[in-house]
Amino acid sequence: MRDISIIGIGQTPVGEHWGRSLRHLAYDALHLAMKDAGTERVDALYVGNMLSGEISGQAHIGPLIADFAGLRGIEAVKIEAACASGAAAFRQGVIGVASGYQDVVAVVGVEKMTDDVGSRLTAGLASAADADYETVHGVTFVALNALIMQRYMHEYGLSKGDFANFSVNAHANGANNPNAMFRRAISKETFMRAGVVANPVSLFDASPMADGAAAAIICPTRLAREYTDKAVHVLASAIATDSLAVHDRKNPLWLQAAEDSAHTAYRQAKITPAELDFFELHDAFTIMAALSLEAAGFAKAGQGTRLAVNGDIALDGKLPIATMGGLKARGHPVGATGMYQIVEAALQLRGEAGKNQLPHARLGMTQNIGGSGATIGTHIFKSSE
Amino acid sequence: MRDISIIGIGQTPVGEHWGRSLRHLAYDALHLAMKDAGTERVDALYVGNMLSGEISGQAHIGPLIADFAGLRGIEAVKIEAACASGAAAFRQGVIGVASGYQDVVAVVGVEKMTDDVGSRLTAGLASAADADYETVHGVTFVALNALIMQRYMHEYGLSKGDFANFSVNAHANGANNPNAMFRRAISKETFMRAGVVANPVSLFDASPMADGAAAAIICPTRLAREYTDKAVHVLASAIATDSLAVHDRKNPLWLQAAEDSAHTAYRQAKITPAELDFFELHDAFTIMAALSLEAAGFAKAGQGTRLAVNGDIALDGKLPIATMGGLKARGHPVGATGMYQIVEAALQLRGEAGKNQLPHARLGMTQNIGGSGATIGTHIFKSSE
Repeated sequence: MRDISIIGIGQTPVGEHWGRSLRHLAYDALHLAMKDAGTERVDALYVGNMLSGEISGQAHIGPLIADFAGLRGIEAVKIEAACASGAAAFRQGVIGVASGYQDVVAVVGVEKMTDDVGSRLTAGLASAADADYETVHGVTFVALNALIMQRYMHEYGLSKGDFANFSVNAHANGANNPNAMFRRAISKETFMRAGVVANPVSLFDASPMADGAAAAIICPTRLAREYTDKAVHVLASAIATDSLAVHDRKNPLWLQAAEDSAHTAYRQAKITPAELDFFELHDAFTIMAALSLEAAGFAKAGQGTRLAVNGDIALDGKLPIATMGGLKARGHPVGATGMYQIVEAALQLRGEAGKNQLPHARLGMTQNIGGSGATIGTHIFKSSE
Repeated sequence: MRDISIIGIGQTPVGEHWGRSLRHLAYDALHLAMKDAGTERVDALYVGNMLSGEISGQAHIGPLIADFAGLRGIEAVKIEAACASGAAAFRQGVIGVASGYQDVVAVVGVEKMTDDVGSRLTAGLASAADADYETVHGVTFVALNALIMQRYMHEYGLSKGDFANFSVNAHANGANNPNAMFRRAISKETFMRAGVVANPVSLFDASPMADGAAAAIICPTRLAREYTDKAVHVLASAIATDSLAVHDRKNPLWLQAAEDSAHTAYRQAKITPAELDFFELHDAFTIMAALSLEAAGFAKAGQGTRLAVNGDIALDGKLPIATMGGLKARGHPVGATGMYQIVEAALQLRGEAGKNQLPHARLGMTQNIGGSGATIGTHIFKSSE
């Protein structure tokens, strides 16, 4: 299997892009990534996206985006795994380069959520859950997370305040990210008095819907130095799955696919979790941040929030998370999020994270969650030094 | 790059499956393929599907189908490339095995079209075309094909009867395929007097919408003999793309992506088109059959219909096509069609095509078209003898 590196990255700001359509956003990110890599050659394009059909009436966006980005004719395809579409697309890119069929591969995650003419967004997002056994009962995606959070708080005797620092930390970091949707720090008090969305999930537990695109160019490591002297090595790439319906799992409070994909990734990278310098996790809801930390091996079951309470997750803590704002403050354009995480990890490892730069960023991990944990993609990256 | 073989195949009948949902159909085909291969081990699942979100309110069907098929936890993802989703998923499976990340891979193409509660099917199918520059004008997918056919007939001085044999041949072959949706032969007269759908496309030019699923299990050729003595070798696997909007192409009457992917495939397989014993092409409309034959190198521009008129495309002709009924008579469950073509090619190469068995089936090609030619996947297969 060939070693693989990221040679270029690009992203659009996350937000409400009323003047840019799906194809424009994807183009913007791809153009920046290709320019960053200094390449006009791309052998194949993988597009991570969830909702183009539902929201934009547009399927078949692989060739659409390839053509619009000036790459007409290349192999191009859409990969869909709900909110994990970004990591799933990156994973297919890695597999493509590893196979030898493709050398220079572009991956873009893109989502256009705000231009929701048919008012299909809530239903579209709920399609990440089991339509026949969950959604049919009227449950939305927020409600599903609320049920999990409620049970978690009950089971482990936690209160709302235990989750506050996930949100406070994300907003503090987002304030310094020029591409973040929300660039204001919040206090614990703001978190505590926020309006309830679906009890116990309140406004600052939940990440915002948004438009955006993020892209990376990858190639075999032995070719990478022809393009750049700041290549980021892909040390591990793993996807695992679980039942779509939460009630079908042995334990609804354990992300088995996070444990499985993280442990596969640790084996591939030949590292232990303790060696990681930071962790870009999937804080779509504060409860998911806690569950992700636990399943990836950073805390025991029911103790994920302690890392937040203790400040371990801050930029100067033991395990910085959401270093550029996370889903909570950077924003969560669902099918693009996994690629934002990867681009942000690359920024840290290239020493280009601005005011949020970690002093010793050598090993970083990203974890992208689809649905309530049915698809989880974990990647580990290493700086070139 | 590792050599790859198909070790198991399975399919459901194509038709209106009111008693089986998306997940059931996928399960049925996967179960048959795994049984055929004699394996319960599957490392990864690739699902080809176009419309699960729009029609069934269900995204995220990779893990859903993996779980339902008894494969909870494995890497699983959905691949979407409109009507070429089947070939695109198979292509990702081939890349997955070639990469060394995965050994035993399952690919299933599945589509559930008839249970269209929200009446979104026509709009859903049109989303294969360019939403901002084609569909916005009210054009349906049939209308787009009608425009192409009209122009083709005008340009090359052809009449409706020149296309008849594509349909007559498909229906004759479908009559002997127990999995075909339409199992009645038709006459040229029936074709000629059929009602117009969108002039000049009439009922027997157009393939029917349907439900169905088809699956294959693939693995490295060196492992194949552990599973079966009738492995089918994957000699070539190629995808090429073109602009989504037909008006953006230099020549709207030439399938550039078919030429590109076919020629890539010929190079990989080290064969010339003349060596092929049969060709499972994408006769979603009779015009697409003609264009596919031309772009793949079997006829000059404007002369594709001659192969039909001359009878060359029949089972005893020079280049049999649609040997099990094609999209026209077997039916066209859009995201599943590419996998039906591959399963049918495997049946011919294994000598299991029943009454439609070709006497000397050694080399076969499949070509799956997405949209009006924006994604085209071409695969070449060889029998084990």
